[in-house]
Amino acid sequence: MKPIIAVVGGEKSVSLKSINYAEKIGQDIALNDCILVCGGRGGVMRAACKGARQKNGLTIGILPSLDKKEANEHVVVPLTTGLGNTRNALVVSSADAVIAVDGGVGTLSEISLALCNNKPVVLVENSSGVTDLLLKEKEKPGFEDRIHRASASKAVKKALDLILEGK
Amino acid sequence: MKPIIAVVGGEKSVSLKSINYAEKIGQDIALNDCILVCGGRGGVMRAACKGARQKNGLTIGILPSLDKKEANEHVVVPLTTGLGNTRNALVVSSADAVIAVDGGVGTLSEISLALCNNKPVVLVENSSGVTDLLLKEKEKPGFEDRIHRASASKAVKKALDLILEGK
Amino acid sequence: MKPIIAVVGGEKSVSLKSINYAEKIGQDIALNDCILVCGGRGGVMRAACKGARQKNGLTIGILPSLDKKEANEHVVVPLTTGLGNTRNALVVSSADAVIAVDGGVGTLSEISLALCNNKPVVLVENSSGVTDLLLKEKEKPGFEDRIHRASASKAVKKALDLILEGK
Amino acid sequence: MKPIIAVVGGEKSVSLKSINYAEKIGQDIALNDCILVCGGRGGVMRAACKGARQKNGLTIGILPSLDKKEANEHVVVPLTTGLGNTRNALVVSSADAVIAVDGGVGTLSEISLALCNNKPVVLVENSSGVTDLLLKEKEKPGFEDRIHRASASKAVKKALDLILEGK
Repeated sequence: MKPIIAVVGGEKSVSLKSINYAEKIGQDIALNDCILVCGGRGGVMRAACKGARQKNGLTIGILPSLDKKEANEHVVVPLTTGLGNTRNALVVSSADAVIAVDGGVGTLSEISLALCNNKPVVLVENSSGVTDLLLKEKEKPGFEDRIHRASASKAVKKALDLILEGK
Repeated sequence: MKPIIAVVGGEKSVSLKSINYAEKIGQDIALNDCILVCGGRGGVMRAACKGARQKNGLTIGILPSLDKKEANEHVVVPLTTGLGNTRNALVVSSADAVIAVDGGVGTLSEISLALCNNKPVVLVENSSGVTDLLLKEKEKPGFEDRIHRASASKAVKKALDLILEGK
Repeated sequence: MKPIIAVVGGEKSVSLKSINYAEKIGQDIALNDCILVCGGRGGVMRAACKGARQKNGLTIGILPSLDKKEANEHVVVPLTTGLGNTRNALVVSSADAVIAVDGGVGTLSEISLALCNNKPVVLVENSSGVTDLLLKEKEKPGFEDRIHRASASKAVKKALDLILEGK
Repeated sequence: MKPIIAVVGGEKSVSLKSINYAEKIGQDIALNDCILVCGGRGGVMRAACKGARQKNGLTIGILPSLDKKEANEHVVVPLTTGLGNTRNALVVSSADAVIAVDGGVGTLSEISLALCNNKPVVLVENSSGVTDLLLKEKEKPGFEDRIHRASASKAVKKALDLILEGK
């Protein structure tokens, strides 16, 4: 089976830099023959899906509502849940690794739920928002060893290494 | 976007006839350029995935556990949820239409949750189990107009017609 | 710990007879020092909560939306979920036994999800809707032994007996 | 209806100070005629339930498994979900306000999910773990106005003020 990588990150007020990072990560996910899972909406999610589709990758969007029109135009499989924000748990539960770019409280919930389920998490350096906050923090009580950092261009490689190591 | 069709049905003690029905339905889903969603495990689910893969279709398995090894070998995208039986709700929430073959209480929960969310449901004639029970029943209080019947060979066509009609 | 009994049943177009049944069952739940869990809204749910409150019982309403105003006025603890119909799974997952009165597809989903989780289910005789449909049916493939019947006045006693037997 | 306050916090390796804080908060919840909701297990959850029961309060435990034996001995209503860590979303979705004491990634997921749903969150000062991490951080991108701080002895009063203000 192909590895599944979740990309989580901000939807609104996302910088152009973060958007570019997400698009690059989406491309790398597809080029490495992995499946992209995300929340299916805008911002970092759309950019990652766009990148993956440029390289002919498969994109899964796990949506909060029951309306598939909520999905961005680069989602191949829109999965409507009707669970609201609780769907955040499913975005990460289905991934072998999680990559975070920018983001606010929604992204923070996805990172922390991924850590609850012992998924490896790669925070993309220099991407602002919650991601940057966690990177700067020296004391991350209880989860230092499951949080990893990488540049945007090396994030997918890092995620794949972690999956191989079983971390 | 491609239509998404869920196939629900029994996992254990499923007759060979029902397995053959499910495989045929899986084939037709792929041949009609639709995406197959199911619970990702054995019995009717495996047979439908097998059929879809024979025709190069995309198969999504929404799994109860957090272990992707639970998926049958014909699932392309195993989505692990950790929700147990509550994942039944998500199998149908993400579908444009639901086709039921055989099955027990799990299948009954999926059919009824699909009806709660106003999804069209096609019961495959002559397939025993819960599906047959509902078909035989003349009085289906409150949901007669959303439950439809078709032979296994016409079930996907029926589902597609219902999706087009917006039923 | 006190036993928890879920009452499931119709919300709309419920007969006066079923409402009276539900109120009596709610009273008996409180009189037997049990906790009532339900979906927290109208119809059978409101009547059961009303009965339980008449006898000073504790009523828990597990609501589909995030708005506690959705709860009926006899719910002591409104638990808002934001899960939509998927909350049906939680109404029964938290109960030691389930009593069904009348109802449509929502009730059918609750009965079947309870059976998936091996909870004993008591169908109230003579209460119409889905409950009556299941009672009339001679062949209930795979779950005959977990579905039980009782009159409204004996339903709580039956549920308590089943809990004690570990069925 | 009585206000519902969720207490979230660490389960393992929790300091005695945090345990004492949680017990005091549980007492105050009961003394202010509020209902306590929590994850139902050990550590901060048990201490909060213990405190609430000392003052005759009502305690609801929303459990990850389907086994009510998982609940601590001070839980009056154990609600089993079978959702695993996804139940974290429900602990906070049902609360009018959330108080955090100590904790790791599970607590972080509950705080962030509460913020996603616009619930006021009170972080208890001087309680270590994730709670302290968030308090120390000057830049909390996008959620500064919904996160509040209070000493353990004033946390419930702060939560009640926030509920009244509709924040």
